[in-house]
Amino acid sequence: MATLTVPSAVPPVADDCDQLRKAFQGWGTNEALIISILAHRDAAQRRAIRRAYADTYGEELLRSITDEISGDFERAVILWTLDPAERDAVLANEVARKWHPGSGSRVLVEIACARGPAQLFAVRQAYHERFKRSLEEDVAAHATGDFRKLLVPLISAYRYEGPEVNTKLAHSEAKILHEKIQHKAYGDDEIIRILTTRSKAQLIATFNRYNDEYGHPINKDLKADPKDEFLSTLRAIIRCFCCPDRYFEKVIRLAIAGMGTDENSLTRIITTRAEVDLKLITEAYQKRNSVPLERAVAGDTSGDYERMLLALLGQEQ
Amino acid sequence: MATLTVPSAVPPVADDCDQLRKAFQGWGTNEALIISILAHRDAAQRRAIRRAYADTYGEELLRSITDEISGDFERAVILWTLDPAERDAVLANEVARKWHPGSGSRVLVEIACARGPAQLFAVRQAYHERFKRSLEEDVAAHATGDFRKLLVPLISAYRYEGPEVNTKLAHSEAKILHEKIQHKAYGDDEIIRILTTRSKAQLIATFNRYNDEYGHPINKDLKADPKDEFLSTLRAIIRCFCCPDRYFEKVIRLAIAGMGTDENSLTRIITTRAEVDLKLITEAYQKRNSVPLERAVAGDTSGDYERMLLALLGQEQ
Repeated sequence: MATLTVPSAVPPVADDCDQLRKAFQGWGTNEALIISILAHRDAAQRRAIRRAYADTYGEELLRSITDEISGDFERAVILWTLDPAERDAVLANEVARKWHPGSGSRVLVEIACARGPAQLFAVRQAYHERFKRSLEEDVAAHATGDFRKLLVPLISAYRYEGPEVNTKLAHSEAKILHEKIQHKAYGDDEIIRILTTRSKAQLIATFNRYNDEYGHPINKDLKADPKDEFLSTLRAIIRCFCCPDRYFEKVIRLAIAGMGTDENSLTRIITTRAEVDLKLITEAYQKRNSVPLERAVAGDTSGDYERMLLALLGQEQ
Repeated sequence: MATLTVPSAVPPVADDCDQLRKAFQGWGTNEALIISILAHRDAAQRRAIRRAYADTYGEELLRSITDEISGDFERAVILWTLDPAERDAVLANEVARKWHPGSGSRVLVEIACARGPAQLFAVRQAYHERFKRSLEEDVAAHATGDFRKLLVPLISAYRYEGPEVNTKLAHSEAKILHEKIQHKAYGDDEIIRILTTRSKAQLIATFNRYNDEYGHPINKDLKADPKDEFLSTLRAIIRCFCCPDRYFEKVIRLAIAGMGTDENSLTRIITTRAEVDLKLITEAYQKRNSVPLERAVAGDTSGDYERMLLALLGQEQ
């Protein structure tokens, strides 16, 4: 349920490169041309364009983009143009290096829990290639305390992906989670073990069991202190497994709401989900806010940045 | 530096299957024939034989083997015939399920530290396929205390594999290791973080720095209590990175030495290293014990089991 729109007849890669080169040259940059090409090509097509562009002009496409545009628009075009695994590696590296528990753990949770196990491993491979270190190495070196204890195994996991569920285990681990939460032992080894190693299917069974047994969703019990960043990280993990569309809807909602816009989060969610499930997220947004997401984005952003996001949201130009 | 010997003219796969089938049939089993084929085929050839055998006879080769032979000989043939990643998954599963800190952690340390990062990931994939769970999930569910804290990240790591070394970091992390060891804080988060996330090249630089700075190898400081299983696990990690041949030599030496033989360890090391570096290990053994490893193995084992191990050690039949 992507929002990305790709023309039915995509021009040859050489033509795309040629057009992009023209957009960068001469007085001023043709931003509309950049958007009309890159925001309407899928990951494989963008990869082919990057390769052909470097071969033809002896310069990286991303380098040319960075030289010509700037600010939020630049960040959106760069992040979008990157391969999904490379993009996640870049996002993870940013938050690992400038560690801040709240925003940092949110990005890492999304990468660890809202992508599949194979995709998470591809991110770790891209991280090696780009940064000459491992993702877990950087997170372990910068994050601290309970956040480190939780996030290092979270991003190191290679979870089983099958549908098999052990109902007895769901029962016993729902009980463990409940007991630890009752005692406010949120950073307990057992909570971390369960959340970081069990398969998605098994975890969903455990959370359902929790709901059945204790009369309300586990996330309600994890809201004891709404301002606690660690609790909010635990809730984000659970939501990324159970209802990623509603999780992402909320991140976008908070990015737009109130004074000022959180462009970083807005760009991250739109570029990482446009080819995945952004249609579901826009539906969740409309349902929750009674406003189309496109209108909300248009109201909070402007210029080429706005046009780029709206193109990725699938709005007709 | 493998010991495996493969004939210069390997028979067609169909002939190998045919011969194996004959070895299993009729009164009694032709063990010598099984050894003469399987112990002289490399991983790709064994894989091809398994596939062709299943296609031809509608039964798994490993199943046929299990029906016909038993004991240590069976275990050696089965482990050897498995693909390297699948074999490691089986070994890891055995120790995870019947958890015992000493032997269990040794097997996991070998798989995590004496294989490359890509091979470790292949083991995790094979584990999913075979056991419908993840390796880290089973280790986390069975191991306890400091062992769990150490082994779960150890087997979840995807270490950077490049040669780059940060000398400043080697310096500062050698200091951290030294301080924690001085205070006997062996299970400290920082020791675990360093050992489980840094690349092999970086770790070796750190251990060298430790030696330079404090006048003796880190492993000497980790011998405070020679009977402590956790300390011995830390030393095994360091040795698997720094000198895998000498590490494996010692495991074999201890398996053979004294009253009785530790067949499990002997079989494990010979089957996992015959295609990798068993020649180096036999050289290290000869040097350390003034006896050829083949002679020591022959002295401590017998029958088909002995013949299987000697074949894998490259001894002419």
